[in-house]
Amino acid sequence: MPIAVPVGSPKIDKMDSLPITKVNNQVEETSKVLGAGGKELPAPYKSTGNEALDTLAFLHLLEQLKVQKRSGWIREGVKEAESISDHMCRMALMAMMIPQDPSRPLDIPRCVMMALVHDLAEAHVGDITPVEGVPAHVKHQLEEQAMDSFLNEMLGGEGNKDARERFRSLWDEYEARETPESKLVKDLDRVELALQAVEYERSQDIRTLSPFFVGSIPNLEHPVVQKWAETLMEERRQLWASRGREQEEQDGLGGAKVGDKTKKVNGV
Amino acid sequence: MPIAVPVGSPKIDKMDSLPITKVNNQVEETSKVLGAGGKELPAPYKSTGNEALDTLAFLHLLEQLKVQKRSGWIREGVKEAESISDHMCRMALMAMMIPQDPSRPLDIPRCVMMALVHDLAEAHVGDITPVEGVPAHVKHQLEEQAMDSFLNEMLGGEGNKDARERFRSLWDEYEARETPESKLVKDLDRVELALQAVEYERSQDIRTLSPFFVGSIPNLEHPVVQKWAETLMEERRQLWASRGREQEEQDGLGGAKVGDKTKKVNGV
Repeated sequence: MPIAVPVGSPKIDKMDSLPITKVNNQVEETSKVLGAGGKELPAPYKSTGNEALDTLAFLHLLEQLKVQKRSGWIREGVKEAESISDHMCRMALMAMMIPQDPSRPLDIPRCVMMALVHDLAEAHVGDITPVEGVPAHVKHQLEEQAMDSFLNEMLGGEGNKDARERFRSLWDEYEARETPESKLVKDLDRVELALQAVEYERSQDIRTLSPFFVGSIPNLEHPVVQKWAETLMEERRQLWASRGREQEEQDGLGGAKVGDKTKKVNGV
Repeated sequence: MPIAVPVGSPKIDKMDSLPITKVNNQVEETSKVLGAGGKELPAPYKSTGNEALDTLAFLHLLEQLKVQKRSGWIREGVKEAESISDHMCRMALMAMMIPQDPSRPLDIPRCVMMALVHDLAEAHVGDITPVEGVPAHVKHQLEEQAMDSFLNEMLGGEGNKDARERFRSLWDEYEARETPESKLVKDLDRVELALQAVEYERSQDIRTLSPFFVGSIPNLEHPVVQKWAETLMEERRQLWASRGREQEEQDGLGGAKVGDKTKKVNGV
């Protein structure tokens, strides 16, 4: 059941104090569930009782991953910004580039699938960015509810049992962020963002993306991904230097470096 | 090495009679390699000798999968058409929906990865559609050369050996189209196209997409995918009927039905 947040309600700190308003299983008209950009969300899907129709509804829902563009880019004035599925596709391809390492064994095919599922909830909720003021636990709750709706209402039939369990398992694992696979996928999420940011800087001369780097590259953990990022940041430095803005680039980063936060944690 | 096709040359039937023009490893200026839409292709990438830089070049190349839109849609006047990676992402998610079937065992994670690799060459060559008059063997050759360039020049270093072998193995398997996994991925390629076509018909009232269905749904083989397509085509019939164009929809299909061609092959 969705938790209805009345429009204009004061900021709520604890999820269990949110008012739940339901009348006959329908959200009251005065209460709206808000997703990315404060956009009102449609009511969650309810099974028709016909497995084929429900499955088709899920297939159509996936189109939203193409239609929804990554909102951080739009906010920064990027033209023709990428979609959510554009981002997930490159992350998944990047997972396939990670070499086997006996000292750091990883189930790469599982990472690939996890990359494709980790933003699945955004097909309903939209792309809520860190700067929108939506508390992390609220974002998580909205996404959890979306996943429940997809998996239990759209893929709820017996014929979709394997699919349901696969998506559920991957999404839960990613959200828990405890396994090496989930941590790698998070790293790929970060580095793919940084890569796309440099590409937009290069092709559209966007100059306000420093926070995207500051929020991503210091948190990288996997040594292979760190190496990619180091090479990328050197490319960025040269790009800004070629435009006579090397100091501005350094200032924007404020000393942020690849893997800074993780190295400190490891005492390096 | 790229095979250079001189601009304006007569249609060539056999690949081994194509003139190969190279001067000092560079294609002669008068010869151009043409990809999708007759667009001249950039010279293929050459390794810099620096593995990190070459790897970064491959990461940046992948952006082309987001930038290049699926050209069939553009040709038919679709606004804001999807990208190549949009298409591959949904295909890969659809692979994850296929249930385990002991009578038809499939390596689903492999199918997911194959879906993400099958159009990789288009990052260089572009999206050549069947109606452009590019012979299939020429398309294949251009794509093969692109893959060689990516894997041997961009991912040619020792550190990328696993990546190189993984991409090569998946792409070759898909091109050969002999394994059950490759056949499923081809089915997903077809049904994802049909799904997107209905979505564009619904949202943008595009009316010229019948050939997309005629070219895809009769060839579907996997029973689960056939079922999705049957439900989809019924949705389409109802959509056109609701617009007073049911007869036009039937005429456009010309009797084409899901799995028609495969059922006949199996004597059903």
